[in-house]
Amino acid sequence: MAALFRGSRNVLLRWNKHLAFVSTRSMASKTPVGFVGLGNMGSPMAKNLLKNGYPVIATDVFPESCKELQDIGAQVVDTPGEVAEKADRILTMLPSSPNVIEVYTGPNGILKKVKKGTLLIDSSTIDPAVSREMAAAAEKMGAVFMDAPVSGGVGAASLAKLTFMVGGVEEEYNAAQELLTCMGANVVYCGPVGTGQAAKICNNMLLAIGMIGTAETMNLGIRLGLDPKLLAKILNMSSGRCWSSDTYNPAPGVMEGVPSANNYQGGFGTTLMAKDLGLAQNTATNTKTPIPLGSLAHQIFRVMCSRGYANKDFSSVFQFLREEEGQ
Amino acid sequence: MAALFRGSRNVLLRWNKHLAFVSTRSMASKTPVGFVGLGNMGSPMAKNLLKNGYPVIATDVFPESCKELQDIGAQVVDTPGEVAEKADRILTMLPSSPNVIEVYTGPNGILKKVKKGTLLIDSSTIDPAVSREMAAAAEKMGAVFMDAPVSGGVGAASLAKLTFMVGGVEEEYNAAQELLTCMGANVVYCGPVGTGQAAKICNNMLLAIGMIGTAETMNLGIRLGLDPKLLAKILNMSSGRCWSSDTYNPAPGVMEGVPSANNYQGGFGTTLMAKDLGLAQNTATNTKTPIPLGSLAHQIFRVMCSRGYANKDFSSVFQFLREEEGQ
Amino acid sequence: MAALFRGSRNVLLRWNKHLAFVSTRSMASKTPVGFVGLGNMGSPMAKNLLKNGYPVIATDVFPESCKELQDIGAQVVDTPGEVAEKADRILTMLPSSPNVIEVYTGPNGILKKVKKGTLLIDSSTIDPAVSREMAAAAEKMGAVFMDAPVSGGVGAASLAKLTFMVGGVEEEYNAAQELLTCMGANVVYCGPVGTGQAAKICNNMLLAIGMIGTAETMNLGIRLGLDPKLLAKILNMSSGRCWSSDTYNPAPGVMEGVPSANNYQGGFGTTLMAKDLGLAQNTATNTKTPIPLGSLAHQIFRVMCSRGYANKDFSSVFQFLREEEGQ
Amino acid sequence: MAALFRGSRNVLLRWNKHLAFVSTRSMASKTPVGFVGLGNMGSPMAKNLLKNGYPVIATDVFPESCKELQDIGAQVVDTPGEVAEKADRILTMLPSSPNVIEVYTGPNGILKKVKKGTLLIDSSTIDPAVSREMAAAAEKMGAVFMDAPVSGGVGAASLAKLTFMVGGVEEEYNAAQELLTCMGANVVYCGPVGTGQAAKICNNMLLAIGMIGTAETMNLGIRLGLDPKLLAKILNMSSGRCWSSDTYNPAPGVMEGVPSANNYQGGFGTTLMAKDLGLAQNTATNTKTPIPLGSLAHQIFRVMCSRGYANKDFSSVFQFLREEEGQ
Repeated sequence: MAALFRGSRNVLLRWNKHLAFVSTRSMASKTPVGFVGLGNMGSPMAKNLLKNGYPVIATDVFPESCKELQDIGAQVVDTPGEVAEKADRILTMLPSSPNVIEVYTGPNGILKKVKKGTLLIDSSTIDPAVSREMAAAAEKMGAVFMDAPVSGGVGAASLAKLTFMVGGVEEEYNAAQELLTCMGANVVYCGPVGTGQAAKICNNMLLAIGMIGTAETMNLGIRLGLDPKLLAKILNMSSGRCWSSDTYNPAPGVMEGVPSANNYQGGFGTTLMAKDLGLAQNTATNTKTPIPLGSLAHQIFRVMCSRGYANKDFSSVFQFLREEEGQ
Repeated sequence: MAALFRGSRNVLLRWNKHLAFVSTRSMASKTPVGFVGLGNMGSPMAKNLLKNGYPVIATDVFPESCKELQDIGAQVVDTPGEVAEKADRILTMLPSSPNVIEVYTGPNGILKKVKKGTLLIDSSTIDPAVSREMAAAAEKMGAVFMDAPVSGGVGAASLAKLTFMVGGVEEEYNAAQELLTCMGANVVYCGPVGTGQAAKICNNMLLAIGMIGTAETMNLGIRLGLDPKLLAKILNMSSGRCWSSDTYNPAPGVMEGVPSANNYQGGFGTTLMAKDLGLAQNTATNTKTPIPLGSLAHQIFRVMCSRGYANKDFSSVFQFLREEEGQ
Repeated sequence: MAALFRGSRNVLLRWNKHLAFVSTRSMASKTPVGFVGLGNMGSPMAKNLLKNGYPVIATDVFPESCKELQDIGAQVVDTPGEVAEKADRILTMLPSSPNVIEVYTGPNGILKKVKKGTLLIDSSTIDPAVSREMAAAAEKMGAVFMDAPVSGGVGAASLAKLTFMVGGVEEEYNAAQELLTCMGANVVYCGPVGTGQAAKICNNMLLAIGMIGTAETMNLGIRLGLDPKLLAKILNMSSGRCWSSDTYNPAPGVMEGVPSANNYQGGFGTTLMAKDLGLAQNTATNTKTPIPLGSLAHQIFRVMCSRGYANKDFSSVFQFLREEEGQ
Repeated sequence: MAALFRGSRNVLLRWNKHLAFVSTRSMASKTPVGFVGLGNMGSPMAKNLLKNGYPVIATDVFPESCKELQDIGAQVVDTPGEVAEKADRILTMLPSSPNVIEVYTGPNGILKKVKKGTLLIDSSTIDPAVSREMAAAAEKMGAVFMDAPVSGGVGAASLAKLTFMVGGVEEEYNAAQELLTCMGANVVYCGPVGTGQAAKICNNMLLAIGMIGTAETMNLGIRLGLDPKLLAKILNMSSGRCWSSDTYNPAPGVMEGVPSANNYQGGFGTTLMAKDLGLAQNTATNTKTPIPLGSLAHQIFRVMCSRGYANKDFSSVFQFLREEEGQ
């Protein structure tokens, strides 16, 4: 992989020195940052860039999404291509792979107008193979593409508490980190392009498995006569311990301040989890990797989406599995 | 595993000598404790009772198992019934439900000779429904039955570091605790009879799910280009974190002192995990509780037993799922 | 389902009158047959024995179930034990293993009063291990126990069209066959005691897997743009063909006269299928046999029971898996 | 969909009339047919076209694959593009989606040189979405693309006994059928482009589920004491009946002339089934369709590929699930 990027590395090293010089000069003179995708997550992320003194050049397919950001100082343009004309560092935050492909390689896309040496950071959660395609396409134009998906929801985005998992040329990591730390609390370098996505997908697959497993276990224990709080305590001091049992327990009455204490409202929606598991499934299928529990977890959240749980927090799998009253 | 405990073993040897001195003095003043089942687990447990100054009346179907204990001071008798004639506190540690039924209710069983008021503590891992049957049968004879399955393996049994999960009448818990603390570091009261088994089964089911999930995730991440140590680090600081990822990682090279660092030798055998998941499955089926991931975990470990992994540590599921060399 | 049999019902009514005439003549010359369990299935089965000229000695825990049979000529007694005093051929048709254990070995059970040489035929669907236990207990009393579970529902029971799968001593098979042919169209000898249950459990497990598989396949094909009737036709001429695709297709609009054409009413209820899969699961767990798809099928029907599908035909899994309108 | 093809339909109708005229004239004057992909399946298919009097213009990436066909009369060219220059009916038979994309849209691809009105028939088994992409790309060039995947293996290909499932504009179906009947016994029109793939994928998913289900069921029944032949007979007269139980039974000793009678050699390899299930999984994921058993079947065949079953017939899942000798 290293060989692939040798050319652009030299370009980038020079560009890095330039940037470092620019940014040390003064906050007022920061160069503008492009931002494409002003949805639930992208909007607060872009705001945090503004708060940190970066001029923002933004666009979104929905004009109303742009209006709010314009009111607080961002310059709004019509297309991703125009963003690329005006900024040499651009962040994208989009719902899924086809949107990323369109925004980068479409007729009005970034790569149609991108300047040599531009740093492109995609924080969408997509298939790592698409990230690698975008990186190859960007390299042809002399630009550098990194994937930097996030963990953490809308709340974390507003508070600049996101975790970024970053894949791409290591030499570019510092430049990316400068921007990402304005929007997140943790920035982790994962390896070559696509490994940010890989890390995100892996974490969420294990999270999904742990959550369903915890829901099954809590339900079984309760039906066998165990008090839910006591069961959670026993699990958490034993080898059954996991994030879903000790931090986000899906059984009502065990913890406060989690979606299970609030009828599974808020949190991380079942459709979003089903989407991430779909990415895990595609990636596993394409690399011929067996993921029996990951696959079944995917199927369970997929069925839940069609049985009325689409917009509830994914920990509502506890409710989905419980016997109905009166049965 | 052995290396982990080398330091503490030396401490223990000194401590054992000290204890031996203490216990010969005070042995006369403690009433005898019965012990049925001197296998890999039962034998070191019975030794710890002796070390703590309790006279032990023991039996086992294999005479050779009795010999070793007899040599260090236990009185050996022929049948569980004879144990019940001589002791009013009895521990049993047996492989499975049918053995427990035989030892308690068989023709030479404990309940044929049990004295009124005897405390019966069963540390076998069995179906909670069998525990409740034994408790009902014991109650008819005026005796009290508690279930107290353990977590922790042979090493923990030798070092008196087991965790006991206890189910039974709360009034008897103190009497049970007095004995169990000689053999374990943690003793947890779980509720009515059978709930000790329930807690054990629940923990091990979630452990099994977490372990397979971790193995799938580590394997997928590695195939996507992530470094295994880095992936484990990312999971452990995120919502994918679980005991199998942070304490007993199944991917070789991530941690030391765990079975994955030693070709999956030692640890907790796949057959034992398959057995515990069989109990979870039976219990769930009989209470009409859905456990989709628990069931699939059961099936995976069951298939592993027939594909050459029976005696390897259960974390060898990582190896089972990996693509073979040359494919 | 009703419509399917309308024609044959009229035939049957005429045939019944004829039979009634015949049977009053010859009733005196046949020895009485005992019948325990007059539920939805047992009642029409007992009626068919009466129609064939056998005096019937019957009992059931619900007096109202006995009344109807009494009105058409059966002698009703209070307990299974009394049945055993008056009949030396006895059929039992009970909901589940605990009922069978009670009816045979309980304080008022058959084996308390059974005469030497009595033939006991149990048509309940239960765990084969319980059948073997009952056979052993019967043998001790000098009686012979056979398991003879049925396939076919209430309609088939009324029309004497059941299939019996019989396990037990081969020498007794002719004697059993004489009675069973009064109630069924097919009687198959399967082997030693318990193998009748085994055959029933095996068939229903494969049926469950085939039905869910067909539902998934029809749903996927429809979503990919295939016409459901055309897809069924293609499957049925290809290697995807199975009973659920060609005889009992779960997709509405493909076939007439099946539950999917009638909002999944009638047929074989999801709870009954979940019960049979529970038996398959227990049997597989206890014999350490891996059944990954059978297990998952069990879990799916179990979840359906708690999500409002308990009393619908089991082919409603098609509906369960479909995306809701408006999603 | 209809509207999309209105333009090309008119072109095609004219072209059809022309063709009909040509082909009725005489066999010797048949216009040449292009063939791309001369592997295990493509080679005998192309031979059957030659046998039926069609001049064949062929190419393949492996020169040795072309040699054999050249010796029996085919004209061999270097690239798919050259095939398109010389033939206005072209068949393609390729291993997977990326090959199809390359052969049609690559720099030397068919669509670089295709003549207006050319009929393109792809018999590869690929993602229906790729078929739709190829159809759209072909339409831009004034050509018509149909998908026509096959069922049946190398034997059926040699004997011209394949089944073709055809998707595409209905007006073109007759023209396609003329060629396909030279190579297959059944040609089924499935609907718009992509539905041929959909039908193939659906059938093979249900086949995979039925095969694993049959393997589990036969194994369970045998372990419960049933004779395998008797069990197969019972299933086949009951609702457990399926193609895998009555035509291709996976348990050795039940049937002759099937892979289970020959140590699972020949037949349909596990890797091929895993590939088809990967397509089913991708398609289901992308259309948000739950396929719980289909997913698990995919995972099982995937694991088998890495455990030494890659090149055995897929019915070897029976062997994979059996307990090893000596356990």
